[in-house]
Amino acid sequence: MSELSRKTTLSYNQIAGQSVERLAALSDGVFAVAMTLLVLDLRAPAAEIVHSEQDLWRALVGLTPRLVMYFMSFMTLGIFWVGQQTQLNHVQRSSRSLTWIHLAFLLVVTIIPFSTALLAEYTQYRVALLVYWINILSLGLTLYWSWICALGSNLVKNEIPVHVSKAIKRRIGIAQSLYALGALLCFFNPYWSIALIFLVQLNYVIAPMFGRPRND
Amino acid sequence: MSELSRKTTLSYNQIAGQSVERLAALSDGVFAVAMTLLVLDLRAPAAEIVHSEQDLWRALVGLTPRLVMYFMSFMTLGIFWVGQQTQLNHVQRSSRSLTWIHLAFLLVVTIIPFSTALLAEYTQYRVALLVYWINILSLGLTLYWSWICALGSNLVKNEIPVHVSKAIKRRIGIAQSLYALGALLCFFNPYWSIALIFLVQLNYVIAPMFGRPRND
Amino acid sequence: MSELSRKTTLSYNQIAGQSVERLAALSDGVFAVAMTLLVLDLRAPAAEIVHSEQDLWRALVGLTPRLVMYFMSFMTLGIFWVGQQTQLNHVQRSSRSLTWIHLAFLLVVTIIPFSTALLAEYTQYRVALLVYWINILSLGLTLYWSWICALGSNLVKNEIPVHVSKAIKRRIGIAQSLYALGALLCFFNPYWSIALIFLVQLNYVIAPMFGRPRND
Amino acid sequence: MSELSRKTTLSYNQIAGQSVERLAALSDGVFAVAMTLLVLDLRAPAAEIVHSEQDLWRALVGLTPRLVMYFMSFMTLGIFWVGQQTQLNHVQRSSRSLTWIHLAFLLVVTIIPFSTALLAEYTQYRVALLVYWINILSLGLTLYWSWICALGSNLVKNEIPVHVSKAIKRRIGIAQSLYALGALLCFFNPYWSIALIFLVQLNYVIAPMFGRPRND
Repeated sequence: MSELSRKTTLSYNQIAGQSVERLAALSDGVFAVAMTLLVLDLRAPAAEIVHSEQDLWRALVGLTPRLVMYFMSFMTLGIFWVGQQTQLNHVQRSSRSLTWIHLAFLLVVTIIPFSTALLAEYTQYRVALLVYWINILSLGLTLYWSWICALGSNLVKNEIPVHVSKAIKRRIGIAQSLYALGALLCFFNPYWSIALIFLVQLNYVIAPMFGRPRND
Repeated sequence: MSELSRKTTLSYNQIAGQSVERLAALSDGVFAVAMTLLVLDLRAPAAEIVHSEQDLWRALVGLTPRLVMYFMSFMTLGIFWVGQQTQLNHVQRSSRSLTWIHLAFLLVVTIIPFSTALLAEYTQYRVALLVYWINILSLGLTLYWSWICALGSNLVKNEIPVHVSKAIKRRIGIAQSLYALGALLCFFNPYWSIALIFLVQLNYVIAPMFGRPRND
Repeated sequence: MSELSRKTTLSYNQIAGQSVERLAALSDGVFAVAMTLLVLDLRAPAAEIVHSEQDLWRALVGLTPRLVMYFMSFMTLGIFWVGQQTQLNHVQRSSRSLTWIHLAFLLVVTIIPFSTALLAEYTQYRVALLVYWINILSLGLTLYWSWICALGSNLVKNEIPVHVSKAIKRRIGIAQSLYALGALLCFFNPYWSIALIFLVQLNYVIAPMFGRPRND
Repeated sequence: MSELSRKTTLSYNQIAGQSVERLAALSDGVFAVAMTLLVLDLRAPAAEIVHSEQDLWRALVGLTPRLVMYFMSFMTLGIFWVGQQTQLNHVQRSSRSLTWIHLAFLLVVTIIPFSTALLAEYTQYRVALLVYWINILSLGLTLYWSWICALGSNLVKNEIPVHVSKAIKRRIGIAQSLYALGALLCFFNPYWSIALIFLVQLNYVIAPMFGRPRND
């Protein structure tokens, strides 16, 4: 690059992607669409196979595995939406680099409907489970990376105490270790993998509700 | 859980999911997508069956049942969007628990397009109607739960008078009783169920417009 | 309704649906999804009919009518988004009634992708054009109604001058008259209808750009 | 137009489309939906061709070209989202003209999922690549136009230094020259075109992360 264009780049860097509000708004939009698209995999049973109340009931019961996958992926999206929100609440302004790390995070979010559909269709295959796990792992990595970047570039609000930052990092580490453990189980049995990942997620969802006396 | 990880969890609890604004933005996104996805069930008639103005007219008239279901589900979404908005307007900040209850509410919202398509396809079956009713019931329960949680965790704005809180709770109670009554009718005739639920919703939509002199 | 429940209703009326910000956010979401869903009607040509650059070129040229319909509907959505924005910018708070009128407006917005697909498929049929026109008419009527309601319920900001309110109303009146004229032409020839409606919309889009010296 | 209606138009011009916030919210919505719709082209392999882990693995490897296209289009959307955000951050209020130029920009954004699907399907055809390039070119042109309009109509914040405005314009010029060069390569070989466009985009995404010492 010539001197001229390099100077332009630097200058553009200094003005581009500063708005945390717009980053949050785009993220809410992507999460909202991904959460709602997940349901497109739940389809009303075909009319040809339904001739009575019992047929319809049985067809709906047959949708249970897809429903379980749907719950699991909705929890995944919810967990990472809360995680990203928690970070962005502590960031005072964005930078072009931080914006792009969050865009990478959103890219991985948009792939969740695909890997969910894959796992719902091929629950018994290890490959499908590993794709799903890589998707969750990538969510964790990009989110961890974005926090490191925010800290390193002094984009975090001043008043944030050290232990908050540690909590954010340790949180991602522990959760990802449990997910990796779950993924490892697939070499034993893919269904056990799904069960463990499901339970880990459920724990993150429900646990805060039973610790209230101490944390409010 | 070890002492270490429990302390992390508590700490993370205290910083996670605090933003009412982002919760509202995510909710608006989910409702917007769900409302617009509903229309994907309305499709232009197939070109093979349309050879004249009369054919097209007849094909469009044949879409009426789907259009009625579409109106009904749009009203459902509208009613619960107004209900959630009313609650969140009185909440000053969120907590991780409250955020997750609202995410559960949004999960139920995203299922509306599925249960609508099911009922549009199998209007004459009680099972389809009961699924639809369980969906509406879950919307009411999660919304009621979120209000109880907001009150219990002192997340509600200070100036809110007692009768407002009572109005919010009683409102959900009365509406859900009427929906349950409508659902019960399906053991008699599913069409009567739909008619009653439709009328109850229409009442909630239209009634405020005729009480203006007294409430403004 | 018993005295008790009526009092609840009134009380709920006074607290429900007050937020202009959330109404605006929901509207932006619905418009954004509707605008993007329109493009789902543009599909890559089927691989079976494309064996050379010329085939692909010809297949793309064959998409032109759909592209024109797409532009037309995007303009429709844009015009009414600007129209609603202009109104809401002058509203200081919402009411339950005003919220529901805007939800009715959004319901009509979500039908645009359907009536667009219908008109793209059946361009030569008067019925398709009349459905499209009724859709545009309903957008105008609900938007007009919402302004009347906002004025009547004193929800409009105080400083708004009388001529602004007149401009908003007259604007809708003139535009809808031109659309109605366009729709009438369909009894002569549906293509002339589309051409006139397209030109009316283009005028509303492009005209402001050539009146700048005077309006800034 | 009569004197009367012309006066109305001017008056409506002065009040319509003023809100930068709503323009930003609509844009975030359109980008979020477009980004998430892209993934609908990634489908789980059909059950008929998958009978073992190896089959599934091979089917997923077969999705790689679509995945590459997906990354490329996500980067395109990200680059132009950052570009538009950077502009709007420096605009203090909108006008009806500026709003419509941004709506034209959003129209072009919604076409990206279509031109992506086209290029993924017909990677070896020059016509598909030229359509994709025209799409990117249109994004650049509308964004450049919107900045010219914002400057010309005095809608830009006062404190903005001259070199920022120059950086915004030069940035678009350089990027579009590189894209045009990439597009030209298609007369030699379409795959080289895609490779160059991909690299140019990757540069814009990754470059800011390695210039940090100087720009923070």
